Amino acid sequence: MSLTDQIHDFGKRARAAARQLRQCTAEQKNAGLRAMSDELVAAQDAILSANAKDLEKAKAAGLSAAMMDRLTLNPKRIAAMADGIRQVAELPDPVGEIIRDWTRPNGLRIQKKRVPIGVIGIIYESRPNVTADAAVLCAKTGNATILRGGSESINSNIAIAAALARGGAKAGLPADAIQLIPVTDREAVRVMCEMDQFLDCIVPRGGKSLIEVVVSHARMPVIKHYDGICIMYVDAAADLAMAEKLIINAKCQRPGVCNAIETVLVHSAVAEKFFATTAPAILEKGVQLRCDERAFSKLANLNSPLVAHAAAEDFRTEYLDLILAVKVVDSIEEAISHIENNGSHHSDCIITADGRAAEQFLADVDSATVYWNASTRFTDGGEFGFGAEIGISTDKLHARGPMGLEELTTYKYVLRGSGQARP
Amino acid sequence: MSLTDQIHDFGKRARAAARQLRQCTAEQKNAGLRAMSDELVAAQDAILSANAKDLEKAKAAGLSAAMMDRLTLNPKRIAAMADGIRQVAELPDPVGEIIRDWTRPNGLRIQKKRVPIGVIGIIYESRPNVTADAAVLCAKTGNATILRGGSESINSNIAIAAALARGGAKAGLPADAIQLIPVTDREAVRVMCEMDQFLDCIVPRGGKSLIEVVVSHARMPVIKHYDGICIMYVDAAADLAMAEKLIINAKCQRPGVCNAIETVLVHSAVAEKFFATTAPAILEKGVQLRCDERAFSKLANLNSPLVAHAAAEDFRTEYLDLILAVKVVDSIEEAISHIENNGSHHSDCIITADGRAAEQFLADVDSATVYWNASTRFTDGGEFGFGAEIGISTDKLHARGPMGLEELTTYKYVLRGSGQARP
Repeated sequence: MSLTDQIHDFGKRARAAARQLRQCTAEQKNAGLRAMSDELVAAQDAILSANAKDLEKAKAAGLSAAMMDRLTLNPKRIAAMADGIRQVAELPDPVGEIIRDWTRPNGLRIQKKRVPIGVIGIIYESRPNVTADAAVLCAKTGNATILRGGSESINSNIAIAAALARGGAKAGLPADAIQLIPVTDREAVRVMCEMDQFLDCIVPRGGKSLIEVVVSHARMPVIKHYDGICIMYVDAAADLAMAEKLIINAKCQRPGVCNAIETVLVHSAVAEKFFATTAPAILEKGVQLRCDERAFSKLANLNSPLVAHAAAEDFRTEYLDLILAVKVVDSIEEAISHIENNGSHHSDCIITADGRAAEQFLADVDSATVYWNASTRFTDGGEFGFGAEIGISTDKLHARGPMGLEELTTYKYVLRGSGQARP
Repeated sequence: MSLTDQIHDFGKRARAAARQLRQCTAEQKNAGLRAMSDELVAAQDAILSANAKDLEKAKAAGLSAAMMDRLTLNPKRIAAMADGIRQVAELPDPVGEIIRDWTRPNGLRIQKKRVPIGVIGIIYESRPNVTADAAVLCAKTGNATILRGGSESINSNIAIAAALARGGAKAGLPADAIQLIPVTDREAVRVMCEMDQFLDCIVPRGGKSLIEVVVSHARMPVIKHYDGICIMYVDAAADLAMAEKLIINAKCQRPGVCNAIETVLVHSAVAEKFFATTAPAILEKGVQLRCDERAFSKLANLNSPLVAHAAAEDFRTEYLDLILAVKVVDSIEEAISHIENNGSHHSDCIITADGRAAEQFLADVDSATVYWNASTRFTDGGEFGFGAEIGISTDKLHARGPMGLEELTTYKYVLRGSGQARP
């Protein structure tokens, strides 16, 4: 069987499973999730021995300590995964919700009803726990998934997906509701991207080159989880103590994530004080500051090895590290323009005590999440109160920002009549 | 300037216009729309002389009478277009709506706010009135548009788009809010499909080959207006007088549109009566019936030239003509399976007096619109009460079914804090 036929076969089976799954009640799906959780714990030994193979291969390939850590499973991490699944089972099911309900003058009643999307393709790299997280959120919302994980964690992924599918089937969910494609080369991604007869949507989670392959080949809708060049703007009317606290939180609390900030813009009216007190406090946290000319001139006297000149590219770079690009601006309009032209429209914040300036910023910055006086680190499904998160969309359509269960559904219109014909 | 640079230049200007446009109030946008309407009427002579060129070319190319009619403008049609724009100006503006508003335990207030999408590409064929319809609905919702119409109506399109842009600019809207690409070859479509830095979304309206080009090249979300293989199922408990009325309405009232039916499924329990009374009534309207074996055997005695054998392909064909494929089924499950495997998930209907059968059908058929006892011809933004319609999406994500103004918007999250940092 050719690779294409083989992957299409996953598609056909997913399509059939999706049709069964969308007819399951919330209680049936939740029972399936609890059984998946049990089966994951029961399969612990098999999962750990599969994971050992991945770790051995990774060690031989010389993966970094950070990468090794992300790849590593242990009983505690498996228990956490199993726990997470039980928590998802407890969440309310958005499927079936009547979003709108109205009756036309001709008596035709129209309901806009929330339904599962159908079959969702998840293409990801590295961390094996994505296998469980993504598949379970999809099953909760009545969607079948076709998973295609990276080569580093392939053995772990196969073992986890098998445990989930087995658990679900024991509780009566279709066995093909969760499938993992065991082929890790890019050709498999291309075939998936082109099979819009089987996949209603693709969610790529991984590095830029993976996302680029998906975006350029996909025939179906793609919900991207792309880069986060998040920017904090310290306004003329900013409380600088708050600015210090929020910049440090948004940069240092977890530098390697998409909602950490990469750039700070400082209004010239507060620049003197900012560079005399706030900037040194940030440097003290070990953050390198890559400064435009005006910012550099104010920090040069510190003779700090952490103070450097910024190139234009620095303002368009997602460092994911303890580095901040810093620039002085003369107006809120200049700050907004900078954000529009250099940011990635993910999460951007104004720090100010001036309500008018804040509202101008919140209205004019076209990003998935815009903040006034809070850390950008709150862009997260959990922090939003969604209970679960499949990712943070950097796209504008269908889902924008944190994606919870609701974003894994679509709608259909249900019309009930009594013989109405169109005049 | 290369074609790519030339089209990117449209993109850059649209991006800048979109930024201005999204800051306009509803009243500013409505004033712009009214000025567009005035300008369209004022430019009538220029538009008609441009249209005359298109008609001359079309005549020379031997276009069908129906195509010529779709292409033809006259003072009445221009007045209707101008009227339509004024009606759109009267509709409520969905932009700015607070879709959800909640406060987290840490005091962070989160609002989900409706905002324009940004820049929308519209790729269409043939009818010049799409130029006005699409551009005006986009402007109403704060979106800039880049239009790329077909070669047949290029002169009319240029004249209409210029009048709209001029009218909008007179009322203070950005001049580049509505732009038309005067290049009609497919290469222009390909360049548009790849410029996701400038276009947030593409809406193709046209034939299958156009849509195929867009789907296979587009890097940004595509909202398709694809085929409508709509199916009506006459259940065992159907009122056959109602079935006759609804089948004739859904097939004959306007056969050339996507929400007209192409297939009728008849439950075997009512087949005898259906083929004795209902089918002859349908034949009398001049509808050709392409029948499966069981249906054919019941109609053969009529010796009607309109009764033919169906091939498998007939059940997957969008006739857009007075032709119906007819098949006898033995259960509602068989009907639903047929619809899932052969329909285009656009609009499907059950005719029955049995509420349980109806609810099973409405729940299990996964189409954009599902009907009980009404003509599928109601799948239409106007008939739904949306006031306006940019098309009927056959996609599942972002917009499904009739697309009104709301479907031309997205949302962003606005967070207001008082110094919250993530623990």
